[in-house]
Amino acid sequence: MKIDIITVLPELLESPLSHSIMKRAQEKGLLQVQVHQLRKWAVNAYGQVDDYQYGGGAGMVMMCEPLANAIEELQATTQYDDIIYMTPDGATFNQQTANRLSLQENLLIICGHYKGIDQRIRDHYITREISIGDFVLSGGELAAALVVDAIGRLLPGVLNDETSALFDSFQDNLLAPPVYTRPADFRGWKVPDMLLSGDPKKIDDWRHDQALERTRERRPDLLKKQDL
Amino acid sequence: MKIDIITVLPELLESPLSHSIMKRAQEKGLLQVQVHQLRKWAVNAYGQVDDYQYGGGAGMVMMCEPLANAIEELQATTQYDDIIYMTPDGATFNQQTANRLSLQENLLIICGHYKGIDQRIRDHYITREISIGDFVLSGGELAAALVVDAIGRLLPGVLNDETSALFDSFQDNLLAPPVYTRPADFRGWKVPDMLLSGDPKKIDDWRHDQALERTRERRPDLLKKQDL
Repeated sequence: MKIDIITVLPELLESPLSHSIMKRAQEKGLLQVQVHQLRKWAVNAYGQVDDYQYGGGAGMVMMCEPLANAIEELQATTQYDDIIYMTPDGATFNQQTANRLSLQENLLIICGHYKGIDQRIRDHYITREISIGDFVLSGGELAAALVVDAIGRLLPGVLNDETSALFDSFQDNLLAPPVYTRPADFRGWKVPDMLLSGDPKKIDDWRHDQALERTRERRPDLLKKQDL
Repeated sequence: MKIDIITVLPELLESPLSHSIMKRAQEKGLLQVQVHQLRKWAVNAYGQVDDYQYGGGAGMVMMCEPLANAIEELQATTQYDDIIYMTPDGATFNQQTANRLSLQENLLIICGHYKGIDQRIRDHYITREISIGDFVLSGGELAAALVVDAIGRLLPGVLNDETSALFDSFQDNLLAPPVYTRPADFRGWKVPDMLLSGDPKKIDDWRHDQALERTRERRPDLLKKQDL
Protein backbone atom coordinates (compact mmCIF):
# COMPACT_ATOMS: atom_id res chain seq x y z
CA MET A 1 0.00 0.00 0.00
CA LYS A 2 1.16 3.49 -0.79
CA ILE A 3 0.07 6.62 1.04
CA ASP A 4 1.02 10.13 -0.10
CA ILE A 5 0.51 13.01 2.29
CA ILE A 6 0.45 16.70 1.34
CA THR A 7 1.14 19.13 4.18
CA VAL A 8 2.72 22.48 5.04
CA LEU A 9 4.32 20.88 8.11
CA PRO A 10 6.05 17.65 7.03
CA GLU A 11 8.29 17.91 10.09
CA LEU A 12 5.29 17.18 12.35
CA LEU A 13 4.98 13.77 10.76
CA GLU A 14 8.60 12.72 11.02
CA SER A 15 8.62 10.81 14.29
CA PRO A 16 5.10 9.30 14.13
CA LEU A 17 5.93 7.66 10.79
CA SER A 18 9.49 6.55 11.52
CA HIS A 19 9.21 4.46 14.69
CA SER A 20 7.63 1.33 16.03
CA ILE A 21 4.99 -0.36 13.91
CA MET A 22 4.98 2.25 11.13
CA LYS A 23 8.73 1.84 10.79
CA ARG A 24 8.41 -1.94 10.66
CA ALA A 25 5.62 -1.78 8.07
CA GLN A 26 7.74 0.39 5.81
CA GLU A 27 10.94 -1.65 6.29
CA LYS A 28 9.04 -4.80 5.37
CA GLY A 29 7.85 -3.07 2.20
CA LEU A 30 4.20 -3.47 3.21
CA LEU A 31 3.55 0.24 3.44
CA GLN A 32 5.12 3.16 1.65
CA VAL A 33 4.41 6.61 3.06
CA GLN A 34 5.66 9.71 1.31
CA VAL A 35 5.20 13.18 2.76
CA HIS A 36 5.12 16.12 0.35
CA GLN A 37 5.74 19.72 1.36
CA LEU A 38 2.97 21.80 -0.21
CA ARG A 39 5.30 24.80 -0.48
CA LYS A 40 7.01 23.02 -3.35
CA TRP A 41 3.92 24.15 -5.31
CA ALA A 42 3.76 27.65 -3.78
CA VAL A 43 2.49 30.53 -5.90
CA ASN A 44 5.57 32.70 -5.41
CA ALA A 45 9.19 32.72 -4.25
CA TYR A 46 8.08 33.44 -0.68
CA GLY A 47 6.51 30.00 -0.56
CA GLN A 48 3.01 31.36 -0.22
CA VAL A 49 0.29 28.71 -0.02
CA ASP A 50 -2.39 30.52 1.99
CA ASP A 51 -4.21 33.85 1.94
CA TYR A 52 -6.88 35.83 3.83
CA GLN A 53 -10.40 34.51 3.59
CA TYR A 54 -13.02 36.16 1.43
CA GLY A 55 -15.63 37.91 3.52
CA GLY A 56 -13.19 38.68 6.31
CA GLY A 57 -12.53 37.04 9.64
CA ALA A 58 -9.62 35.52 11.55
CA GLY A 59 -7.53 32.72 10.10
CA MET A 60 -5.91 32.00 6.77
CA VAL A 61 -7.21 29.70 4.01
CA MET A 62 -5.07 27.34 1.95
CA MET A 63 -5.18 28.45 -1.70
CA CYS A 64 -6.50 26.53 -4.69
CA GLU A 65 -3.55 26.75 -6.99
CA PRO A 66 -0.80 25.05 -4.95
CA LEU A 67 -3.15 22.25 -3.93
CA ALA A 68 -4.53 21.71 -7.43
CA ASN A 69 -1.03 21.61 -8.89
CA ALA A 70 0.26 19.28 -6.16
CA ILE A 71 -2.63 16.85 -6.55
CA GLU A 72 -2.38 16.82 -10.34
CA GLU A 73 1.38 16.29 -10.34
CA LEU A 74 1.00 13.31 -7.99
CA GLN A 75 -1.94 11.97 -9.99
CA ALA A 76 0.24 11.93 -13.10
CA THR A 77 2.15 8.91 -11.72
CA THR A 78 -0.33 7.34 -9.30
CA GLN A 79 -3.99 6.45 -9.57
CA TYR A 80 -5.50 7.13 -6.16
CA ASP A 81 -8.39 5.08 -4.80
CA ASP A 82 -9.25 8.02 -2.58
CA ILE A 83 -8.14 11.61 -2.19
CA ILE A 84 -8.79 12.29 1.46
CA TYR A 85 -9.10 15.63 3.23
CA MET A 86 -8.67 15.65 7.00
CA THR A 87 -11.27 18.06 8.35
CA PRO A 88 -13.41 18.33 11.50
CA ASP A 89 -16.57 18.39 9.38
CA GLY A 90 -15.75 15.13 7.58
CA ALA A 91 -17.18 11.70 8.31
CA THR A 92 -16.03 10.49 11.72
CA PHE A 93 -13.21 7.97 11.36
CA ASN A 94 -13.85 4.54 12.85
CA GLN A 95 -12.62 0.98 12.68
CA GLN A 96 -14.91 0.13 9.76
CA THR A 97 -13.40 2.95 7.71
CA ALA A 98 -9.91 1.84 8.76
CA ASN A 99 -10.70 -1.74 7.65
CA ARG A 100 -12.06 -0.52 4.33
CA LEU A 101 -9.16 1.83 3.59
CA SER A 102 -6.61 -0.87 4.49
CA LEU A 103 -7.81 -2.77 1.40
CA GLN A 104 -6.91 0.08 -0.99
CA GLU A 105 -3.75 0.36 -3.05
CA ASN A 106 -3.06 4.09 -3.18
CA LEU A 107 -4.28 6.89 -0.95
CA LEU A 108 -3.60 10.61 -1.04
CA ILE A 109 -4.18 12.54 2.18
CA ILE A 110 -4.40 16.34 2.32
CA CYS A 111 -3.75 17.91 5.71
CA GLY A 112 -5.58 21.16 6.30
CA HIS A 113 -4.03 23.89 8.37
CA TYR A 114 -5.19 27.29 9.58
CA LYS A 115 -8.90 27.69 8.66
CA GLY A 116 -8.72 24.84 6.16
CA ILE A 117 -8.51 24.58 2.40
CA ASP A 118 -10.43 26.54 -0.22
CA GLN A 119 -13.85 24.97 -0.69
CA ARG A 120 -13.31 24.63 -4.44
CA ILE A 121 -10.57 22.05 -3.89
CA ARG A 122 -12.99 20.09 -1.73
CA ASP A 123 -15.66 20.32 -4.42
CA HIS A 124 -13.46 19.29 -7.33
CA TYR A 125 -10.69 16.97 -6.09
CA ILE A 126 -11.50 15.45 -2.71
CA THR A 127 -13.28 12.08 -2.77
CA ARG A 128 -13.48 11.46 0.98
CA GLU A 129 -13.49 13.80 3.99
CA ILE A 130 -12.43 12.33 7.30
CA SER A 131 -12.74 13.78 10.78
CA ILE A 132 -10.80 12.14 13.55
CA GLY A 133 -13.36 13.27 16.13
CA ASP A 134 -15.48 16.15 17.42
CA PHE A 135 -12.63 18.42 18.38
CA VAL A 136 -10.34 20.89 16.65
CA LEU A 137 -6.61 20.47 16.14
CA SER A 138 -4.05 22.98 14.95
CA GLY A 139 -3.78 20.99 11.73
CA GLY A 140 -4.60 17.78 9.97
CA GLU A 141 -1.12 16.29 10.33
CA LEU A 142 -1.57 14.39 13.59
CA ALA A 143 -5.01 13.26 12.46
CA ALA A 144 -3.41 11.93 9.26
CA ALA A 145 -0.75 10.14 11.33
CA LEU A 146 -3.49 8.42 13.31
CA VAL A 147 -5.28 7.32 10.16
CA VAL A 148 -2.04 5.94 8.72
CA ASP A 149 -1.34 4.11 11.98
CA ALA A 150 -4.87 2.66 12.23
CA ILE A 151 -4.75 1.49 8.61
CA GLY A 152 -1.12 0.41 8.60
CA ARG A 153 -1.42 -1.99 11.52
CA LEU A 154 -4.19 -3.85 9.68
CA LEU A 155 -2.03 -4.69 6.67
CA PRO A 156 -1.27 -8.42 6.68
CA GLY A 157 2.21 -9.07 8.09
CA VAL A 158 2.60 -5.74 9.89
CA LEU A 159 1.70 -6.94 13.38
CA ASN A 160 3.87 -9.76 14.66
CA ASP A 161 0.90 -11.86 15.67
CA GLU A 162 -1.73 -11.62 12.98
CA THR A 163 -4.47 -12.77 15.31
CA SER A 164 -3.78 -9.83 17.56
CA ALA A 165 -5.69 -7.13 15.65
CA LEU A 166 -8.78 -9.34 15.41
CA PHE A 167 -9.32 -9.23 19.16
CA ASP A 168 -9.03 -5.47 19.49
CA SER A 169 -11.84 -3.26 20.65
CA PHE A 170 -14.41 -2.41 17.93
CA GLN A 171 -13.66 -5.31 15.57
CA ASP A 172 -16.78 -7.01 16.90
CA ASN A 173 -18.47 -3.86 18.25
CA LEU A 174 -17.42 -4.87 21.77
CA LEU A 175 -14.86 -3.15 23.93
CA ALA A 176 -11.92 -5.34 24.95
CA PRO A 177 -12.13 -7.14 28.33
CA PRO A 178 -9.75 -6.14 31.17
CA VAL A 179 -6.22 -7.54 30.97
CA TYR A 180 -3.79 -8.55 33.71
CA THR A 181 -0.21 -9.71 33.92
CA ARG A 182 2.22 -10.81 36.64
CA PRO A 183 2.36 -10.61 39.59
CA ALA A 184 -0.97 -12.21 40.55
CA ASP A 185 -0.91 -10.14 43.73
CA PHE A 186 0.40 -6.59 43.55
CA ARG A 187 0.19 -4.70 46.83
CA GLY A 188 -2.81 -6.79 47.80
CA TRP A 189 -4.61 -6.11 44.48
CA LYS A 190 -5.35 -9.51 42.97
CA VAL A 191 -5.90 -10.86 39.48
CA PRO A 192 -9.40 -12.40 39.08
CA ASP A 193 -9.27 -16.12 40.01
CA MET A 194 -10.85 -17.12 36.72
CA LEU A 195 -7.80 -16.00 34.74
CA LEU A 196 -5.60 -18.28 36.87
CA SER A 197 -7.95 -21.27 36.44
CA GLY A 198 -6.17 -22.67 33.40
CA ASP A 199 -9.50 -23.52 31.76
CA PRO A 200 -9.42 -21.92 28.28
CA LYS A 201 -13.15 -22.38 27.62
CA LYS A 202 -14.19 -20.77 30.90
CA ILE A 203 -11.68 -17.96 30.41
CA ASP A 204 -13.10 -17.27 26.94
CA ASP A 205 -16.60 -17.10 28.37
CA TRP A 206 -15.49 -14.83 31.20
CA ARG A 207 -13.76 -12.51 28.76
CA HIS A 208 -16.82 -12.32 26.55
CA ASP A 209 -19.00 -11.54 29.58
CA GLN A 210 -16.57 -8.87 30.74
CA ALA A 211 -16.41 -7.34 27.26
CA LEU A 212 -20.18 -7.28 27.09
CA GLU A 213 -20.55 -5.79 30.56
CA ARG A 214 -17.95 -3.13 29.90
CA THR A 215 -19.59 -2.24 26.58
CA ARG A 216 -23.06 -2.06 28.21
CA GLU A 217 -21.72 0.21 30.91
CA ARG A 218 -19.49 2.49 28.85
CA ARG A 219 -20.71 2.35 25.27
CA PRO A 220 -24.24 0.99 25.01
CA ASP A 221 -24.42 2.68 21.58
CA LEU A 222 -22.02 0.06 20.19
CA LEU A 223 -24.34 -2.80 21.16
CA LYS A 224 -27.11 -1.38 19.01
CA LYS A 225 -24.89 -1.87 15.99
CA GLN A 226 -24.89 -5.65 16.20
CA ASP A 227 -27.09 -8.68 16.76
CA LEU A 228 -26.33 -10.20 20.12
CA MET B 1 -0.18 24.36 32.30
CA LYS B 2 2.01 21.31 32.74
CA ILE B 3 1.47 17.95 31.07
CA ASP B 4 3.54 14.87 31.92
CA ILE B 5 3.36 11.88 29.61
CA ILE B 6 4.48 8.34 30.45
CA THR B 7 5.24 6.09 27.47
CA VAL B 8 7.48 3.27 26.24
CA LEU B 9 7.95 5.16 22.96
CA PRO B 10 8.92 8.75 23.77
CA GLU B 11 10.52 9.04 20.32
CA LEU B 12 7.06 8.86 18.71
CA LEU B 13 6.16 12.12 20.42
CA GLU B 14 9.25 14.09 19.50
CA SER B 15 8.14 15.84 16.34
CA PRO B 16 4.44 16.35 17.20
CA LEU B 17 5.41 18.26 20.34
CA SER B 18 8.33 20.25 18.99
CA HIS B 19 6.91 22.11 16.00
CA SER B 20 4.31 24.65 15.06
CA ILE B 21 1.77 25.64 17.70
CA MET B 22 2.99 23.19 20.35
CA LYS B 23 6.49 24.61 19.99
CA ARG B 24 5.21 28.16 20.26
CA ALA B 25 3.10 27.34 23.34
CA GLN B 26 6.13 25.88 25.09
CA GLU B 27 8.49 28.68 24.05
CA LYS B 28 6.05 31.23 25.40
CA GLY B 29 6.00 29.34 28.70
CA LEU B 30 2.27 28.71 28.40
CA LEU B 31 2.59 24.96 28.22
CA GLN B 32 5.20 22.63 29.61
CA VAL B 33 5.17 19.08 28.26
CA GLN B 34 7.53 16.46 29.66
CA VAL B 35 7.74 12.96 28.24
CA HIS B 36 8.94 10.17 30.55
CA GLN B 37 10.30 6.85 29.33
CA LEU B 38 8.53 4.14 31.36
CA ARG B 39 11.59 1.88 31.10
CA LYS B 40 13.28 4.14 33.64
CA TRP B 41 11.03 2.29 36.13
CA ALA B 42 11.53 -1.17 34.56
CA VAL B 43 11.51 -4.24 36.81
CA ASN B 44 14.90 -5.50 35.67
CA ALA B 45 18.10 -4.58 33.86
CA TYR B 46 16.57 -5.68 30.53
CA GLY B 47 14.14 -2.78 30.81
CA GLN B 48 11.13 -5.06 31.12
CA VAL B 49 7.80 -3.24 31.52
CA ASP B 50 5.38 -5.76 30.00
CA ASP B 51 4.57 -9.44 30.32
CA TYR B 52 2.22 -12.12 28.92
CA GLN B 53 -1.41 -11.77 29.86
CA TYR B 54 -3.03 -14.01 32.45
CA GLY B 55 -5.45 -16.44 30.88
CA GLY B 56 -3.47 -16.63 27.63
CA GLY B 57 -3.95 -14.92 24.28
CA ALA B 58 -1.95 -12.77 21.90
CA GLY B 59 -0.44 -9.48 22.98
CA MET B 60 1.55 -8.25 25.96
CA VAL B 61 0.24 -6.31 28.95
CA MET B 62 2.02 -3.41 30.64
CA MET B 63 2.91 -4.41 34.20
CA CYS B 64 1.71 -2.81 37.44
CA GLU B 65 5.01 -2.17 39.13
CA PRO B 66 6.75 0.14 36.63
CA LEU B 67 3.58 2.19 36.16
CA ALA B 68 2.80 2.43 39.88
CA ASN B 69 6.36 3.51 40.63
CA ALA B 70 6.44 6.02 37.78
CA ILE B 71 3.13 7.58 38.77
CA GLU B 72 4.08 7.79 42.43
CA GLU B 73 7.49 9.31 41.72
CA LEU B 74 5.88 12.01 39.58
CA GLN B 75 3.14 12.57 42.14
CA ALA B 76 5.78 13.29 44.77
CA THR B 77 6.50 16.65 43.13
CA THR B 78 3.28 17.44 41.26
CA GLN B 79 -0.35 17.32 42.27
CA TYR B 80 -2.26 16.17 39.20
CA ASP B 81 -5.79 17.34 38.46
CA ASP B 82 -6.24 14.20 36.38
CA ILE B 83 -4.30 11.03 35.69
CA ILE B 84 -5.45 10.10 32.22
CA TYR B 85 -5.19 6.76 30.47
CA MET B 86 -5.50 6.76 26.67
CA THR B 87 -7.57 3.68 25.78
CA PRO B 88 -10.11 2.76 23.09
CA ASP B 89 -12.69 1.92 25.79
CA GLY B 90 -12.44 5.33 27.48
CA ALA B 91 -14.85 8.24 27.11
CA THR B 92 -14.74 9.62 23.59
CA PHE B 93 -12.67 12.79 23.46
CA ASN B 94 -14.49 15.88 22.22
CA GLN B 95 -14.25 19.67 22.24
CA GLN B 96 -16.07 19.95 25.57
CA THR B 97 -13.50 17.69 27.22
CA ALA B 98 -10.71 19.67 25.55
CA ASN B 99 -12.19 22.92 26.87
CA ARG B 100 -12.50 21.50 30.38
CA LEU B 101 -9.00 20.02 30.47
CA SER B 102 -7.51 23.28 29.17
CA LEU B 103 -8.54 24.89 32.48
CA GLN B 104 -6.47 22.45 34.57
CA GLU B 105 -3.01 23.08 35.99
CA ASN B 106 -1.34 19.66 35.88
CA LEU B 107 -2.18 16.59 33.86
CA LEU B 108 -0.51 13.18 33.71
CA ILE B 109 -1.17 11.08 30.62
CA ILE B 110 -0.38 7.35 30.44
CA CYS B 111 0.02 5.93 26.95
CA GLY B 112 -0.97 2.28 26.64
CA HIS B 113 0.83 0.01 24.23
CA TYR B 114 0.44 -3.62 23.18
CA LYS B 115 -2.79 -4.97 24.76
CA GLY B 116 -2.93 -2.10 27.27
CA ILE B 117 -2.06 -1.67 30.93
CA ASP B 118 -2.84 -4.02 33.82
CA GLN B 119 -6.42 -3.40 34.96
CA ARG B 120 -5.27 -2.82 38.56
CA ILE B 121 -3.48 0.40 37.54
CA ARG B 122 -6.72 1.57 35.94
CA ASP B 123 -8.64 0.70 39.09
CA HIS B 124 -6.29 2.37 41.56
CA TYR B 125 -4.54 5.30 39.86
CA ILE B 126 -6.35 6.45 36.75
CA THR B 127 -8.92 9.22 37.23
CA ARG B 128 -10.00 9.66 33.60
CA GLU B 129 -9.97 7.33 30.60
CA ILE B 130 -10.00 8.92 27.19
CA SER B 131 -10.57 7.37 23.79
CA ILE B 132 -9.70 9.37 20.74
CA GLY B 133 -12.32 7.52 18.68
CA ASP B 134 -13.78 4.15 17.74
CA PHE B 135 -10.66 2.71 16.20
CA VAL B 136 -7.53 0.98 17.38
CA LEU B 137 -4.02 2.39 17.18
CA SER B 138 -0.70 0.70 17.79
CA GLY B 139 -0.35 2.76 20.97
CA GLY B 140 -1.66 5.71 22.92
CA GLU B 141 1.17 8.06 21.94
CA LEU B 142 -0.40 9.68 18.88
CA ALA B 143 -3.72 9.88 20.68
CA ALA B 144 -1.97 11.67 23.55
CA ALA B 145 -0.32 14.05 21.06
CA LEU B 146 -3.76 14.92 19.68
CA VAL B 147 -5.14 15.59 23.14
CA VAL B 148 -2.17 17.82 23.97
CA ASP B 149 -2.62 19.69 20.69
CA ALA B 150 -6.40 20.13 21.15
CA ILE B 151 -5.89 21.39 24.71
CA GLY B 152 -2.76 23.41 24.07
CA ARG B 153 -4.24 25.56 21.32
CA LEU B 154 -7.01 26.66 23.70
CA LEU B 155 -4.62 28.14 26.25
CA PRO B 156 -4.90 31.93 26.19
CA GLY B 157 -2.05 33.43 24.17
CA VAL B 158 -1.15 30.29 22.23
CA LEU B 159 -3.00 31.11 19.02
CA ASN B 160 -1.93 34.37 17.41
CA ASP B 161 -5.47 35.59 17.08
CA GLU B 162 -7.41 34.71 20.18
CA THR B 163 -10.73 35.04 18.46
CA SER B 164 -9.73 32.31 16.04
CA ALA B 165 -10.46 29.25 18.23
CA LEU B 166 -13.92 30.57 19.08
CA PHE B 167 -15.10 30.21 15.51
CA ASP B 168 -13.89 26.66 15.04
CA SER B 169 -16.18 23.76 14.40
CA PHE B 170 -17.86 22.31 17.53
CA GLN B 171 -17.47 25.36 19.78
CA ASP B 172 -21.14 26.14 19.11
CA ASN B 173 -22.14 22.62 18.02
CA LEU B 174 -22.09 23.78 14.40
CA LEU B 175 -19.64 22.76 11.74
CA ALA B 176 -17.66 25.62 10.25
CA PRO B 177 -18.98 27.21 7.03
CA PRO B 178 -17.03 26.82 3.76
CA VAL B 179 -14.03 29.12 3.31
CA TYR B 180 -12.52 30.67 0.19
CA THR B 181 -9.49 32.75 -0.68
CA ARG B 182 -8.03 34.38 -3.77
CA PRO B 183 -8.40 34.16 -6.71
CA ALA B 184 -12.15 34.78 -6.98
CA ASP B 185 -12.16 32.73 -10.16
CA PHE B 186 -9.93 29.67 -10.34
CA ARG B 187 -10.28 27.68 -13.56
CA GLY B 188 -13.84 28.92 -13.84
CA TRP B 189 -14.73 27.84 -10.29
CA LYS B 190 -16.04 30.94 -8.58
CA VAL B 191 -16.25 32.20 -5.01
CA PRO B 192 -19.89 32.76 -3.89
CA ASP B 193 -20.92 36.36 -4.73
CA MET B 194 -22.05 36.98 -1.16
CA LEU B 195 -18.48 36.76 0.15
CA LEU B 196 -17.44 39.49 -2.30
CA SER B 197 -20.37 41.76 -1.33
CA GLY B 198 -18.48 43.67 1.34
CA ASP B 199 -21.54 43.62 3.64
CA PRO B 200 -20.35 42.19 6.98
CA LYS B 201 -23.85 41.66 8.37
CA LYS B 202 -25.04 39.75 5.32
CA ILE B 203 -21.85 37.73 5.22
CA ASP B 204 -22.33 36.76 8.87
CA ASP B 205 -25.87 35.62 8.15
CA TRP B 206 -24.76 33.66 5.09
CA ARG B 207 -22.03 31.94 7.06
CA HIS B 208 -24.43 30.99 9.82
CA ASP B 209 -26.88 29.58 7.26
CA GLN B 210 -24.09 27.64 5.56
CA ALA B 211 -22.86 26.29 8.90
CA LEU B 212 -26.38 25.22 9.80
CA GLU B 213 -27.00 23.61 6.43
CA ARG B 214 -23.71 21.74 6.50
CA THR B 215 -24.37 20.52 10.03
CA ARG B 216 -27.91 19.36 9.11
CA GLU B 217 -26.57 17.50 6.14
CA ARG B 218 -23.45 15.95 7.67
CA ARG B 219 -23.95 15.83 11.41
CA PRO B 220 -27.59 16.22 12.40
CA ASP B 221 -26.65 14.64 15.77
CA LEU B 222 -24.81 17.84 16.72
CA LEU B 223 -27.94 19.95 16.29
CA LYS B 224 -29.78 17.90 18.90
CA LYS B 225 -27.23 19.03 21.45
CA GLN B 226 -28.29 22.67 21.34
CA ASP B 227 -31.26 24.99 21.27
CA LEU B 228 -31.60 26.55 17.86
